[in-house]
Amino acid sequence: MSKRGCFITFEGVDGTGKTTHVEKLAAELKSEGKKVVMLREPGGTQIGEQIRQILLKREHQAMADVSELFLFAAARAQLVREVIRPALERGEHVLCDRFIDSTVAYQGYGRGLDIDLVKKVNNAAVGETRPDLTIWIDIESGELAMRLGKRNTDNKSDRLDLESNEFRTRVRDGYAKIQEEEPDRVLRVLSMPDIEDTYEQIINCVRREIP
Amino acid sequence: MSKRGCFITFEGVDGTGKTTHVEKLAAELKSEGKKVVMLREPGGTQIGEQIRQILLKREHQAMADVSELFLFAAARAQLVREVIRPALERGEHVLCDRFIDSTVAYQGYGRGLDIDLVKKVNNAAVGETRPDLTIWIDIESGELAMRLGKRNTDNKSDRLDLESNEFRTRVRDGYAKIQEEEPDRVLRVLSMPDIEDTYEQIINCVRREIP
Repeated sequence: MSKRGCFITFEGVDGTGKTTHVEKLAAELKSEGKKVVMLREPGGTQIGEQIRQILLKREHQAMADVSELFLFAAARAQLVREVIRPALERGEHVLCDRFIDSTVAYQGYGRGLDIDLVKKVNNAAVGETRPDLTIWIDIESGELAMRLGKRNTDNKSDRLDLESNEFRTRVRDGYAKIQEEEPDRVLRVLSMPDIEDTYEQIINCVRREIP
Repeated sequence: MSKRGCFITFEGVDGTGKTTHVEKLAAELKSEGKKVVMLREPGGTQIGEQIRQILLKREHQAMADVSELFLFAAARAQLVREVIRPALERGEHVLCDRFIDSTVAYQGYGRGLDIDLVKKVNNAAVGETRPDLTIWIDIESGELAMRLGKRNTDNKSDRLDLESNEFRTRVRDGYAKIQEEEPDRVLRVLSMPDIEDTYEQIINCVRREIP
């Protein structure tokens, strides 16, 4: 019988380099011979990818906040049951780019939906399958503005990219509250101008779970 | 200022003739010069119709019950905000083929999801916009089996049609419980072999709200 794998999620506002670091970490763990499943939310299943299309379409500006909440939850419930649980049971490590805390930070603190409702919906979507460790990549507001400035000039931004600065600040502060509430599970890493400096903090956190 | 319109929903297992009766009622009210909006769930908005496609696809047999719950809720939240509320505020009557009670009956009593969770999700999706009147079209099990036998031979059935008899019985009994809990809002009509006999009962119920 293989030991259950470790479930690590990555959180933070867009532009902190989450995706880069998830890929870097997956490569390092694989190079050590470990089995790693790398996922992004929403998506990762046939049903979830179709939900992702609905969520990202630019013309869906009229989407109600609560519809958005339920669409993320539907995709997540599917991902947990089809992919995450089976992988963990096979003893593989699962790295997920965004998970339950994104919904609390974005739909709860960002959009202003009732936090208790958001948490109940999250609980129903994931059941017992909660992250063993969550890396919250935080970033100074000046550094973030610089990176997003670069990104937006390429005109590839989707519906969820078109959010205001005040919204992003509420989301960032939401992550800070989540970290305060669950300091053992959620570890804060500060995104540095040099990727290697950020990654060093991340790998130190991960070694707590995967030596 | 026009008076707020009346919001009437139609419920029951498939095969009771709901859709036919909603259409018949809409035609009668329109012939009296009343403004009527006729809707079906899930759907009725651009986002909702895309969600409908995900829900009905036959190849989505692996859909988790809780994902299904959230997808229905997402489509409903959108329909309430984009269509139902504005229509009622304009003084139009809204007739909806399925609404919150379908979720309690199917996902709650049928699939076995926690009824309290289903109700909380419903409340978040619809807010204050609850039906003034719900017509539950009930049917004797023998009569239902005969009608569904006819329907299934045409091979057009979708994912949600492929449910077992035991499932349908749980859903039917779920509707009975909903009617017991809210007898003023939910009126039971028994589907008869002759459509006119059923419709006469329905129009009598409706006249309570729309003289």
